Amino acid sequence: MNKIVREKNPLVHCITNYVTVNDVANAILAVGGAPIMADDIDEIEEIVAKANALVINIGTLNQRTAASMWAAASTANKKNVPVILDPVGVGASSLRNKVVTRLLKNNQFAVIRGNLSEMAFCAGKDSETRGVDSNSDDKKFSAAEIAKIVAEKYSCVAVVTGAVDVVTDGKNFAQIKNGVPAMSKITGAGCMLSGILGAYIGACEDKFSAAVNAVASMGIAGEISFEKFSEVGTGSLHIGIIDALSQIDDEIISARGKIVRYEN
Amino acid sequence: MNKIVREKNPLVHCITNYVTVNDVANAILAVGGAPIMADDIDEIEEIVAKANALVINIGTLNQRTAASMWAAASTANKKNVPVILDPVGVGASSLRNKVVTRLLKNNQFAVIRGNLSEMAFCAGKDSETRGVDSNSDDKKFSAAEIAKIVAEKYSCVAVVTGAVDVVTDGKNFAQIKNGVPAMSKITGAGCMLSGILGAYIGACEDKFSAAVNAVASMGIAGEISFEKFSEVGTGSLHIGIIDALSQIDDEIISARGKIVRYEN
Amino acid sequence: MNKIVREKNPLVHCITNYVTVNDVANAILAVGGAPIMADDIDEIEEIVAKANALVINIGTLNQRTAASMWAAASTANKKNVPVILDPVGVGASSLRNKVVTRLLKNNQFAVIRGNLSEMAFCAGKDSETRGVDSNSDDKKFSAAEIAKIVAEKYSCVAVVTGAVDVVTDGKNFAQIKNGVPAMSKITGAGCMLSGILGAYIGACEDKFSAAVNAVASMGIAGEISFEKFSEVGTGSLHIGIIDALSQIDDEIISARGKIVRYEN
Repeated sequence: MNKIVREKNPLVHCITNYVTVNDVANAILAVGGAPIMADDIDEIEEIVAKANALVINIGTLNQRTAASMWAAASTANKKNVPVILDPVGVGASSLRNKVVTRLLKNNQFAVIRGNLSEMAFCAGKDSETRGVDSNSDDKKFSAAEIAKIVAEKYSCVAVVTGAVDVVTDGKNFAQIKNGVPAMSKITGAGCMLSGILGAYIGACEDKFSAAVNAVASMGIAGEISFEKFSEVGTGSLHIGIIDALSQIDDEIISARGKIVRYEN
Repeated sequence: MNKIVREKNPLVHCITNYVTVNDVANAILAVGGAPIMADDIDEIEEIVAKANALVINIGTLNQRTAASMWAAASTANKKNVPVILDPVGVGASSLRNKVVTRLLKNNQFAVIRGNLSEMAFCAGKDSETRGVDSNSDDKKFSAAEIAKIVAEKYSCVAVVTGAVDVVTDGKNFAQIKNGVPAMSKITGAGCMLSGILGAYIGACEDKFSAAVNAVASMGIAGEISFEKFSEVGTGSLHIGIIDALSQIDDEIISARGKIVRYEN
Repeated sequence: MNKIVREKNPLVHCITNYVTVNDVANAILAVGGAPIMADDIDEIEEIVAKANALVINIGTLNQRTAASMWAAASTANKKNVPVILDPVGVGASSLRNKVVTRLLKNNQFAVIRGNLSEMAFCAGKDSETRGVDSNSDDKKFSAAEIAKIVAEKYSCVAVVTGAVDVVTDGKNFAQIKNGVPAMSKITGAGCMLSGILGAYIGACEDKFSAAVNAVASMGIAGEISFEKFSEVGTGSLHIGIIDALSQIDDEIISARGKIVRYEN
């Protein structure tokens, strides 16, 4: 599906954190999309209306940008622009919890992507396990279980990233075993993936397969870079990931993708 | 003129977008300038007053920074600090249009730089071609025509970047044919150029030649990096541009510059 | 002490400028810490409370983030989270002076790090030499003198960076002669050092030695990168510093550290 992304060159509007915003823009360009970053509430609706996808990443949210996120998501829903949510660090502060809860309550997302802890919050499992009912069984949920709950609860594609990534829309299920642990030694691998998801989702009809391909693209890029730079260091690993994303194509994804579709 | 930039080490105050700000700072350093980024209205006037040039880039403007841009431009004009305007994405939202229109109405710019669409907006040609008089001839203006209109309308050096870059102050005209299409696959080439323009304009008396040299420097850096990294990827291309900028000198510009001065 | 940092993986909360924030995050990860960037006043106290260190860098402060800095420093003091202050550009505007003065007056810092000019401001020596008593001897203070004054005045570890770096807690003194002048041709070496100080201080009991090791780590990383990339350019120098930081260990610091402890 990467060929479709490169042909359609989807415009991906990002409201994203200032830590990794440059990497997100370059990652979107690398896989064939066109990024636009804009976060002022006075222009958010006009920009969303032109976009093929909207990516909301709450990494360095503030009260000003939170309002922009709410407005952008609502406009995107009205205009049928698919929205990707990256609830970075949700659970770490009541502000993040409030913003994500409001987004999830009022808006429809095409994809929600996070690590197990962030996705457990979206699944409502964080509050259960830490809530007043402290005598309850402190069940740990697997990535596959959390993904399914999120997909069904919000009628979206859920992506739980970790050592093995899980993607599901509640009906189709896939595990992606690409990627290397060293990717966690640079900042931005998750944010870049959410940007890439915007490009794939903005270009492709089949949202589940688009998400699977986006996740595999990021993991494969990490592997290719790690093969070159594991002995060099994390600065080069970082740059090598962008290099590899810019070279990715459907042949590489077919050849290197460790994608296992499974029945639930 | 790069020698002059490196000798004078001009202080370039940037109010710029958070997507490419790191690249802009490193590009200014690479060609011999000294960047300072500051955008709070409470300090903007003090910082501008110390600077040799001010660069205003509206890439991720918001209502807070728009007010800072207006104040900074006014102070710069009072203090005879040359101002470079990069109207990123003007035409894409009414906020951007309003901010740029107000800047152009109230302030004097040494250089205005943008792509053809952005510069056409500044030239007042965007509204003409899309306005109510939809039966009118939907004339397309060339980069050279738009540059001349902007230069004359605002008594500035106009730089229209594209496959061929055009620079004019309304009397002198140059085309610069350096650069490679792959530069559009990384974010920030335009923003870096606007930063470099700040360094050259802040150091050199002859604003037209300074702009021509800045544009050639950026294009040549793109070519040098592309020669090394075209097979590697856009992450390396990005870093290679900064590398090449840091090695640029007047000999390289003379040897590699594809600068054609022309009569209008 | 780098081994301790890598074992403890301290969470370093940064309120830092948007120019170099990506480098700061990657530098913290490279030496073994875990960065979290958050600057909204509504979440600052919750994030600080989870952190092992707080880094306040005023590089692109604004009125909103200044309030967050004040709140974060106060919470950190209450929770015994050590705070690192990087007073970037203090002296350049009354806003910066006001924010730093208020921070220094109301809060306790584990480390204050700056260049000679910034640290002279903290020492109160800037105003003396430029004040009303213009007939007074316009004494220039050395880095060692300024460091000692800051360390004693604020009961902290003072780090004055320059051609030779000075570290003191008022009782112990060290000069670190690592690093290369070319590091000043990229933006962010100072900011990265302040981030690394957060990781070392957040993990180690002995704050003076932690600071010495952090300063040496940064200088050595600059040297290693310069040995590889001095002929290539500043883009590669930048990436090479992150590479070298990710490879740093106590053996490298012992072998390459040019650390001279001295009596005052």
